[in-house]
Amino acid sequence: MEESLEKRRIVVAVDESEESMHALSWCLHNLVSQNQNTNTTLFLLYVKPPPPVYCSLDATGYLFGNGDVITSLENYGKDLANSVMRKADAICHKFDAKFTVEKKIGSGDAKDVICIATKQLMADMLVMGSHDYGFFKRAILGSVSEYCAKNVKCPVVVVKRPK
Amino acid sequence: MEESLEKRRIVVAVDESEESMHALSWCLHNLVSQNQNTNTTLFLLYVKPPPPVYCSLDATGYLFGNGDVITSLENYGKDLANSVMRKADAICHKFDAKFTVEKKIGSGDAKDVICIATKQLMADMLVMGSHDYGFFKRAILGSVSEYCAKNVKCPVVVVKRPK
Repeated sequence: MEESLEKRRIVVAVDESEESMHALSWCLHNLVSQNQNTNTTLFLLYVKPPPPVYCSLDATGYLFGNGDVITSLENYGKDLANSVMRKADAICHKFDAKFTVEKKIGSGDAKDVICIATKQLMADMLVMGSHDYGFFKRAILGSVSEYCAKNVKCPVVVVKRPK
Repeated sequence: MEESLEKRRIVVAVDESEESMHALSWCLHNLVSQNQNTNTTLFLLYVKPPPPVYCSLDATGYLFGNGDVITSLENYGKDLANSVMRKADAICHKFDAKFTVEKKIGSGDAKDVICIATKQLMADMLVMGSHDYGFFKRAILGSVSEYCAKNVKCPVVVVKRPK
């Protein structure tokens, strides 16, 4: 019986933003929980910033010279990852549906890591939140969701948080 | 019974491209047919280019002076709309699911019309195909799906056609 179910792999990019948690809820509600004819694996993907590059920082030792600062930054990163995953888990548990959750942590530039991970995980779709930046902030920061929608091969769902 | 069903309004932007028909199939398969706990209305939205502006063409009457040319262009536009809608209908009929289809034809710049229509139709989500243009074509033409993902308030699904 289990074998006859269609398999589907969904990547949801999660971060500390409410937008991403809303995107996860949207995904669970619209793509997973009402769709029990499909064997869904949900990959929660959190990307932490790349670790500080020690060598290139040697010259600016007066800024980052204290090893403790770097360590605590890294711990903060891990703690943040855990806290995001805990939040995401809580949202998943609210939905009374059969699906498998796998947690993945990436490291690097979020937009690149999301694109690479989506491909590596052989995702059937990618779901992500979108920050509603204004024109100037967008022009400077670029948009992770825009970049991913452009570069990922599978369908991409961009979910905005309702006002 | 019918009353207790959650209502959902999905706009699918269709055009003559295979990408848009693939996006429609994807939507029916992933969002509609396996989800029978929801009362779905599917809006098929086709946008035809704005009608030629007669006044501004007076000066270039040697190009468009023949009324027939303009009429036939307009007919072509209508025929194209019909042909796209027929294709879309055929795809909808393949899916054995309960949902309502409504056809809407807009006129104007596709990206603007899609954004406005999505709002006016109070859509819960917008589904559209994406052409996989190269860098230069994209730089000149821009991307309709990118623009819509940026400007529409509801979740947007961008579906690429698998190679």
